[in-house]
Amino acid sequence: MRDVLVLKITGKAFDEGSTLISRYVKLLKSMVSEYRLIVITGGGNTARKYISDARSLGISSNYWLDLIGIWVSRLNSLLITSSLQPYAYPKPAVSLEEVLEALSSHRVVAMGGLIPGQSTASTAIEVVEAVGAEKLYYFSAVGYAYDRDPAKYPDAKPLREVNASLLKKILEQKQLPGEYALIDEKALDLAIRSKILVQLISYREPEKLLDALRGENPGSLIHPA
Amino acid sequence: MRDVLVLKITGKAFDEGSTLISRYVKLLKSMVSEYRLIVITGGGNTARKYISDARSLGISSNYWLDLIGIWVSRLNSLLITSSLQPYAYPKPAVSLEEVLEALSSHRVVAMGGLIPGQSTASTAIEVVEAVGAEKLYYFSAVGYAYDRDPAKYPDAKPLREVNASLLKKILEQKQLPGEYALIDEKALDLAIRSKILVQLISYREPEKLLDALRGENPGSLIHPA
Amino acid sequence: MRDVLVLKITGKAFDEGSTLISRYVKLLKSMVSEYRLIVITGGGNTARKYISDARSLGISSNYWLDLIGIWVSRLNSLLITSSLQPYAYPKPAVSLEEVLEALSSHRVVAMGGLIPGQSTASTAIEVVEAVGAEKLYYFSAVGYAYDRDPAKYPDAKPLREVNASLLKKILEQKQLPGEYALIDEKALDLAIRSKILVQLISYREPEKLLDALRGENPGSLIHPA
Amino acid sequence: MRDVLVLKITGKAFDEGSTLISRYVKLLKSMVSEYRLIVITGGGNTARKYISDARSLGISSNYWLDLIGIWVSRLNSLLITSSLQPYAYPKPAVSLEEVLEALSSHRVVAMGGLIPGQSTASTAIEVVEAVGAEKLYYFSAVGYAYDRDPAKYPDAKPLREVNASLLKKILEQKQLPGEYALIDEKALDLAIRSKILVQLISYREPEKLLDALRGENPGSLIHPA
Amino acid sequence: MRDVLVLKITGKAFDEGSTLISRYVKLLKSMVSEYRLIVITGGGNTARKYISDARSLGISSNYWLDLIGIWVSRLNSLLITSSLQPYAYPKPAVSLEEVLEALSSHRVVAMGGLIPGQSTASTAIEVVEAVGAEKLYYFSAVGYAYDRDPAKYPDAKPLREVNASLLKKILEQKQLPGEYALIDEKALDLAIRSKILVQLISYREPEKLLDALRGENPGSLIHPA
Amino acid sequence: MRDVLVLKITGKAFDEGSTLISRYVKLLKSMVSEYRLIVITGGGNTARKYISDARSLGISSNYWLDLIGIWVSRLNSLLITSSLQPYAYPKPAVSLEEVLEALSSHRVVAMGGLIPGQSTASTAIEVVEAVGAEKLYYFSAVGYAYDRDPAKYPDAKPLREVNASLLKKILEQKQLPGEYALIDEKALDLAIRSKILVQLISYREPEKLLDALRGENPGSLIHPA
Repeated sequence: MRDVLVLKITGKAFDEGSTLISRYVKLLKSMVSEYRLIVITGGGNTARKYISDARSLGISSNYWLDLIGIWVSRLNSLLITSSLQPYAYPKPAVSLEEVLEALSSHRVVAMGGLIPGQSTASTAIEVVEAVGAEKLYYFSAVGYAYDRDPAKYPDAKPLREVNASLLKKILEQKQLPGEYALIDEKALDLAIRSKILVQLISYREPEKLLDALRGENPGSLIHPA
Repeated sequence: MRDVLVLKITGKAFDEGSTLISRYVKLLKSMVSEYRLIVITGGGNTARKYISDARSLGISSNYWLDLIGIWVSRLNSLLITSSLQPYAYPKPAVSLEEVLEALSSHRVVAMGGLIPGQSTASTAIEVVEAVGAEKLYYFSAVGYAYDRDPAKYPDAKPLREVNASLLKKILEQKQLPGEYALIDEKALDLAIRSKILVQLISYREPEKLLDALRGENPGSLIHPA
Repeated sequence: MRDVLVLKITGKAFDEGSTLISRYVKLLKSMVSEYRLIVITGGGNTARKYISDARSLGISSNYWLDLIGIWVSRLNSLLITSSLQPYAYPKPAVSLEEVLEALSSHRVVAMGGLIPGQSTASTAIEVVEAVGAEKLYYFSAVGYAYDRDPAKYPDAKPLREVNASLLKKILEQKQLPGEYALIDEKALDLAIRSKILVQLISYREPEKLLDALRGENPGSLIHPA
Repeated sequence: MRDVLVLKITGKAFDEGSTLISRYVKLLKSMVSEYRLIVITGGGNTARKYISDARSLGISSNYWLDLIGIWVSRLNSLLITSSLQPYAYPKPAVSLEEVLEALSSHRVVAMGGLIPGQSTASTAIEVVEAVGAEKLYYFSAVGYAYDRDPAKYPDAKPLREVNASLLKKILEQKQLPGEYALIDEKALDLAIRSKILVQLISYREPEKLLDALRGENPGSLIHPA
Repeated sequence: MRDVLVLKITGKAFDEGSTLISRYVKLLKSMVSEYRLIVITGGGNTARKYISDARSLGISSNYWLDLIGIWVSRLNSLLITSSLQPYAYPKPAVSLEEVLEALSSHRVVAMGGLIPGQSTASTAIEVVEAVGAEKLYYFSAVGYAYDRDPAKYPDAKPLREVNASLLKKILEQKQLPGEYALIDEKALDLAIRSKILVQLISYREPEKLLDALRGENPGSLIHPA
Repeated sequence: MRDVLVLKITGKAFDEGSTLISRYVKLLKSMVSEYRLIVITGGGNTARKYISDARSLGISSNYWLDLIGIWVSRLNSLLITSSLQPYAYPKPAVSLEEVLEALSSHRVVAMGGLIPGQSTASTAIEVVEAVGAEKLYYFSAVGYAYDRDPAKYPDAKPLREVNASLLKKILEQKQLPGEYALIDEKALDLAIRSKILVQLISYREPEKLLDALRGENPGSLIHPA
């Protein structure tokens, strides 16, 4: 499936009304005749709000907190799905088998998370693996991998290329529902085991995907090593 | 199924963080050993926000706008479901058959809307019909039926009891996704055809359900006539 | 989906053995290379017989009576499905999502009703809405809308064009399972909200669909206003 | 599952309006607190009519003809299902796994055929096998096995007890959809391999099931040998 | 569906590591642009081992023993499925309806058995019937039908052409799970009723399928008579 | 759900015919009236053989290799399921939602892996999380955690209690399908985040589970810290 592109869009992109999403939609529409597209969306602020409400209701089980986050990510994916009719598979795919099946008769498949205990980043890597692609285009909150946490260290330097194993050491993951960092350790492990490149792009600049498709590196490139 | 209670909670109840919902949860928990409970939740502000975002993305199809609203209502139902573990059926029921099946082995079934083109109020009436109950307990934004639109006429008078056919004439329904009024015409028609009573209760006072179960009328009672 | 036609065939068409249905089948076969077709079938006499038997068994719940009618309408749709192999989706679609999904890889999707409490006419309008079409071709028992009930008033006049809101006033709907009239109020409401034209054609003259596709009006045209 | 009874009711029982079925319903209701019941229904005249219509439409594939017959048998099962609410699993079971699952939380499971190419008699034997029961109560058109075809030979004698292997030789099976004879060869083979007794009872006398449960033989008993 | 080929591969082909299967895979790959392929796989030694273990665990129910065999046959089909990506439907089809649906958007559908009480040979005939094909290509352990059991009679002669009804008499079927013979009686009956030819080919020579497609008879041909 | 026990059985237990498994079955049968049991089985040698065959067929995608391993683990779970009839949910659960649902009406739920990219150990932890239990009983190949790899260092010492975070450092995980070590890093991370204790027990001594239930530690206890 050479013509299949797998894109992960951070939930942050859905936090600012439709302005930013409409740019994604425009971009995806322009690509739909040339590529088949799988779009994995995150949960963003709505997920955080619902998870926070759930905690206030006394829910401490990570299973349920994760599941609520997954449902929000699926809700976000519906904005993509409905915007790309009649090309898009008409519901959020909820298993990898469904992704493969949907892809055989649709140009676009949008989806959120799949299973509690797993970030949407890991899900995205598994999708790349399942469809036999080689790269994940990852529209992330930050856009670059850094040599240190840029939130703490103002002098942190962006890494244009970095090995996944090194990045694992740099990142300190937190595993609370709805608070996964840039990209989690497990996602990087999965990328390494299946030799999948991750192209980071700032979520604020969806159009840079076209640069990436031309062979440029508009963010950071994470090598599966 | 004499011991089955069907409750509809307006999406507004989910608009104010967890304070109000936690009162519903506490109430439902106290009832779960005595009754089997079906809880239909609306979409509220989150639905309105997502539908508004969808419109901004150029989506004009009522099918998709309704579907997005339905997914939000299901998301809201998950707060009920996760709060009432291990008694609650572990996912939002998405068909009437699933409601019946789930009810045979769970004390609580929570759900949102079922199908585009139908309000969650209509869905709730159909659930009452399907489980063979006689009454819908409807936690609505207003709490009472009025002889005139109380938003326009400050001197509108609450009707403690009213026939559904009269209420239909009073209400002027609008059919835009996410903007169904107090209770829509179709829901009233369904109530009439299946002789289902609708007990309105203000969504701000969930505990008044206990009054209703004691035979009182803590809001308005809509007769199927 | 400009090439998608949505057709509703009254259950009456299935009441007279295969003579009439074979004309529908021939017509649909001739169109299958040019159009994608969604066919919604009613229940007809068989539905009425089963519902009547159910009543005699003491079943008074409209949920169950409706459901039995829906199963008969699905059974009728199987005659269309099996006649249009290998073009037709191999089972009756039972949700709007399934219609959309089936349509992406089949030329024909046949189906009956979807949910108790809703006529197959309403279902048909929702299908039109879901696939983004603009018109429903409705093969009805009567073929025309009239200014008065033609069964009661011999001098009732057919209306070649009529607004849905006016037609609502003319028709007096009954809501008993299996006895929906020409087209029910709810279906008209759904047509209005989504700006869907309804082209009535006599169920005895399926071939007139071709006239309608040429821009003629071989029955009555109901405007969504 | 000692308390599970598996009953097969010939489609003929559904051919005479509700009079006869109401006796079955009354019987089943009286047993529901003591036994868990699985009821497999045949298609009867309605199946024959639909299959005949399908042939007239030019459908010659036994797959489709059988499937249409199966859908009618499921429709018939819905009369049982709806009459035995809230005890009955709310839809026709369509696989053996579904039967087992449904049985764990319902007192009654009603169903029709499962798969083209297989009679409802064979289906019934497989159900007995799957639930680990030892006997099938078979309400058949004839009520007895005979030493010769009673339709051809007026002096044919009923066999109160007969081995399945002998009965196979007596019966000359026809394998046209909707026309399976008393009990087909495959069903008898399945009974033999799993050592399942078949108690034949005339479909006109449902109440004789009670005799059978008291240890009597109110028809013919087919031994798995 | 003129271009659809239905192939049955005996489980024995999976008993010798990947050497033999890789020849099947190579063959199927070479045909995938010209034909749509349905591949039904048997269970082989792994099925026999698991069924034997199950018996040792005290499981005597043929339902469960068959089901375990079916799961092994599905596992075998996954080797075909994964080898023929991205052309193959991504999971074992588990019903005839799923086969039909999968075939509309995939070049290859692989599957094992469908239902306890039925051999994979019978399943394969039903698949041929369902897709409207005329012939089953059956890679069997023996490759030829013989006039007597070749295992017992060294002078048994292969029959290049034989009628199914004659073959039924020659074969003495055993009905134990995992031990179905060359082809079982029921499969032959199904072939007769639907006029399906069965082309036997030795499972050790998959490439002879190409001879068969050129009109030759590289094994035995069983006529539906 | 205080009475729910979650057990993970290494695939190795299925490698030695039925001798060992029959001890598990006997144990589980003795517990079924007191506890509800969820049993997660691994793939063992059969998984390794199938994955090896798949590699020989040229399949390099970890998605497909994992999936084949998952299907074998489900096949193993069927031995448990069929041995524990009629108490066990009649099929391998394939999602966490299904586990929760099945548990509401069955005493036993058996299952294998859920999703490619995740070990059955991680799956087991997620199951514990989903059902709200506090401990995983893990019948592992080794039975103890060691301070060093006991396969390399003959003087490695068993650790009766160990923190998960320390164990992570001791273990060097490999991520090839079918070759997950004692317990993988991700499973330990999930255990830590949800405060789940892991009780290791040698897979050769299933009966020691009873010791563990009496409060003893018959292997190693991994603390979620």
